[in-house]
Amino acid sequence: MSKTMAINAGSSSLKFQIIEMPEETVVSKGLVERIGLNDSKLEIKYTDANGEEQKFQLTEDIADHGRAVDLLLTNLLDLGVIADFEEITGVGHRVVAGGELFKESCLVDEQVIKNIEELGDFAPLHNPAEAVVIRVFQEKLPHATMVTVFDTSFHTSMPAENYMYSIPYEYYENYSVRKYGAHGTSHQFVANRAAEIVGKPIEDLKIITCHLGNGASITAVDGGKSIDTSMGFTPLAGLTMGTRVGDIDASAIPFIMEKEGIETIQEMVNIFNKKSGLLGISGVSSDMRDVEEAAEAGNERAQLALDIFFNRIIKYIGQYIALMNGVDVIVFTAGIGENSKETREITMRNFGYMGVKIDEERNNTRKEAIVSSDDSTVTVINIPTNEEIAIARDVERLKKTK
Amino acid sequence: MSKTMAINAGSSSLKFQIIEMPEETVVSKGLVERIGLNDSKLEIKYTDANGEEQKFQLTEDIADHGRAVDLLLTNLLDLGVIADFEEITGVGHRVVAGGELFKESCLVDEQVIKNIEELGDFAPLHNPAEAVVIRVFQEKLPHATMVTVFDTSFHTSMPAENYMYSIPYEYYENYSVRKYGAHGTSHQFVANRAAEIVGKPIEDLKIITCHLGNGASITAVDGGKSIDTSMGFTPLAGLTMGTRVGDIDASAIPFIMEKEGIETIQEMVNIFNKKSGLLGISGVSSDMRDVEEAAEAGNERAQLALDIFFNRIIKYIGQYIALMNGVDVIVFTAGIGENSKETREITMRNFGYMGVKIDEERNNTRKEAIVSSDDSTVTVINIPTNEEIAIARDVERLKKTK
Repeated sequence: MSKTMAINAGSSSLKFQIIEMPEETVVSKGLVERIGLNDSKLEIKYTDANGEEQKFQLTEDIADHGRAVDLLLTNLLDLGVIADFEEITGVGHRVVAGGELFKESCLVDEQVIKNIEELGDFAPLHNPAEAVVIRVFQEKLPHATMVTVFDTSFHTSMPAENYMYSIPYEYYENYSVRKYGAHGTSHQFVANRAAEIVGKPIEDLKIITCHLGNGASITAVDGGKSIDTSMGFTPLAGLTMGTRVGDIDASAIPFIMEKEGIETIQEMVNIFNKKSGLLGISGVSSDMRDVEEAAEAGNERAQLALDIFFNRIIKYIGQYIALMNGVDVIVFTAGIGENSKETREITMRNFGYMGVKIDEERNNTRKEAIVSSDDSTVTVINIPTNEEIAIARDVERLKKTK
Repeated sequence: MSKTMAINAGSSSLKFQIIEMPEETVVSKGLVERIGLNDSKLEIKYTDANGEEQKFQLTEDIADHGRAVDLLLTNLLDLGVIADFEEITGVGHRVVAGGELFKESCLVDEQVIKNIEELGDFAPLHNPAEAVVIRVFQEKLPHATMVTVFDTSFHTSMPAENYMYSIPYEYYENYSVRKYGAHGTSHQFVANRAAEIVGKPIEDLKIITCHLGNGASITAVDGGKSIDTSMGFTPLAGLTMGTRVGDIDASAIPFIMEKEGIETIQEMVNIFNKKSGLLGISGVSSDMRDVEEAAEAGNERAQLALDIFFNRIIKYIGQYIALMNGVDVIVFTAGIGENSKETREITMRNFGYMGVKIDEERNNTRKEAIVSSDDSTVTVINIPTNEEIAIARDVERLKKTK
C-alpha cells in the first residue's frame, strides 16, 4: 500500500492529508495549530479498524515545526493510521511563492530548499516555514519522495503585458516586482476537470476559473494555460475577499494613513489584509454565510458587502472574456464557489448579453455539475476543487521520473 | 455679442478659451504657465481683424493667479480679442474635485467657493488654486455669470457597489474614501454626442466612453448615467497613462519602498503619478507617439509599454460590458483616442467574439466618424472631445436660471 502526504504549512500551522494512491482515497486529515505559541493543538481525523470516523485531539505547547511533525507522525502510528513510516512513500509540500523560478512542481533537493528560502521575500510568513517543514520531513521520512508544488507555477505562463505593472521598469528588473498570482494548483485542477467534463481537449478551450473561498481569485485559462489572474504581487489584490481589500487606488493610501494616524505602510497593508473585504465593509464577519444571514435580516452594510463581492467577480470575468476574445467554460470552485448557488446565479446574470443561461434546478447543488442550461452559449460548471489530490498526483508523477 | 470664458486652472497654470455663444465659435485660446515661479509665460492665440491666426507670447515673473488673470485680461483687450470686459458675460470654471457634494454644475456663490476649498483634501494641487482663480474672476468681471463645472459630477450617479472600496467602512463614513473618477465633462459630452450620432435616446443606450489622453479613463454610461469609471479616489488609478501607474497591488508598495529606500508613502505615490505608466515601462517618454516610434525602431520596452497600454483598455472595456450586461456603442476620444487608429483597431479586435468589427478605411481618421463596419454588433465611434464647449454650454444653461 502506498500513502502520500499532502502538506500545507504556514508560519504557525500545518495542515495535512494522507491519501492512498493511485486510488486517491483520503484516509486521514488534520492540522497542527499555534505552533510556537502555547496551547498548541493537534487534530487528526481518520477511520478506525471498525470503519468508524474518529477525531483525535491533543493540546500541548508545541515549540516548533520539528516538534509538530514529530508529534503528528508518532500519533499517526499510535492511532494505527499508518503501520510504519515506510508506508508513506511520498510527501508533497505546497509552497506559496515560487517566483519566476519554479514553473512546475519538482523533486526536492538542497538547491530547491535554498531557492524557496530565498523567495521568502515574496511570502515572508510562508516560504521560510515551508522550507523548515520540508527539512523536518526529509529527516523523519528519508525514504519518501519529497515534492514541492507551487501556488504560483500555473501562472508562470502569463504573458508580460498581463503580469507587468506600469511601474518604473527597474522595479521589475531589480526586484522582480510583478504579478505572480496564487491558487494555481486549484485553478489548474478545475480547468483540467472542466475540459474532461465538456469532453474537449483543453488546448481548444477558453476557460475562466473562479476560485471563491475566504481567499478568492479568478483566472483566465486559454488553451490550458493561465494567461491572467486576479491576484497580484501577493494574494492581496483582485477580488473582494473575506478580510482582504482586493483592488484599491494606491493614492487613497497616504490619505487614509494621515487621517487615521497610521504610521507605517506595513501597518496599512496589514489592515488591507486582515480587516478589509467582507469583514471591513459589513462590520459583521469575514464569513460569507454570516454576511448573507445579516443581509437577509436587513443589515444594509452586509448587503453592500455582498453587492461589492458579486460586482468584482462580474468585473473580472468580464475582463477575462475580453482578454481571451470569448469564453467556452466558466468554472466555480472553493468554499463559496461550490456552495453558494446565489453567487453563481447573480454573477452569471450579467452575461445574459452573450447567451449565458443558468438552469435554476441544476444550479441547486453543491456537487460537481454543469449548472448552465443546454442552450447556454457558455458551459458553467460547479467543480469542487481538491488541491491535496492535485498535490498527490504530482508526487506520483514525479516519483516515476526519479 | 456674448462671449464665454472656459477656465481650467491648476496650481501653477491657467488655461482658457473664449467662445462665442450660442454659436460655439472659439475666438481665442491660450494659457499662463509657471505662475508663482520665475519666467512665467503667457500665450494667447487669436484671429486678428484681417482673419489671420496670431500667437501672442510674453515671458515675465507672474507672482500669483491674481496677477495672471489681470495680465491675461489686459492683453486680451490690447490685442482686440475683446472690446471691453462687459463682453464676457459668463465664465465657466473647471473644478477637479466636487466630492459627493456637487452632483452637477452650479452658479458660484460664497458657499460654493468655500465648499471647493474644503474639498481641497481630495485635490490639494487643484481645488485651492481653482478657488483662488474664481475669486479673482469675480473681482475682475463682477458682471459675468460665474459657473463651476466639476470633473466628478457626472460620476456621482455611480451605485455604491461600484464606488466603494473593500476597506473598513469607517474610512468611507469618516473621510469619504471612495471612487470619484474624473474626466466627467468629457465622458458626458461624448456620450451625449454618440447618442445623437446613432440617433437614439441616450436613455436607451449602453455606452462605453474611452477618454485616452496623457491622463486616461474609461466610463460605463448606462442610460445616460455614469455607472462606473476606471479612475478612483484620485486620477491615479485605472488605465496605464503617460506617467501614471493605474492599477497596482497595494502590497507591492511596502516591498518597493524597502528595496528602493523610499521613506514616505507620499514619495512613492509621487513616483506612481509622475514616473510610471508609459514613461516608467518604456524609459523613453510619456508621449504615446514617442513610445510608438521607439517600438517601431525595435525598442522592446517601448513595445511592452504599448502592449500593456492596450491590455488595460481591453480589460476595462471588458468589465464594463459585463457590468452593463452588453454594450451598444463604444466611443474613443481625447489625444490618443481620437488620433491613434492603431489603438482603436488593436483594442477592438478582442471583442470580435461579440461581433465588433472595425472598418479599416473608416477607422483611418482623426475626425468624428463611425469607425465600425455596418454589420458590427456594436457601433464604434471616434468623437473629438471638447470640454470647453461643454463648460460654455453649462454657463449658458445656468445663466437662464439666474
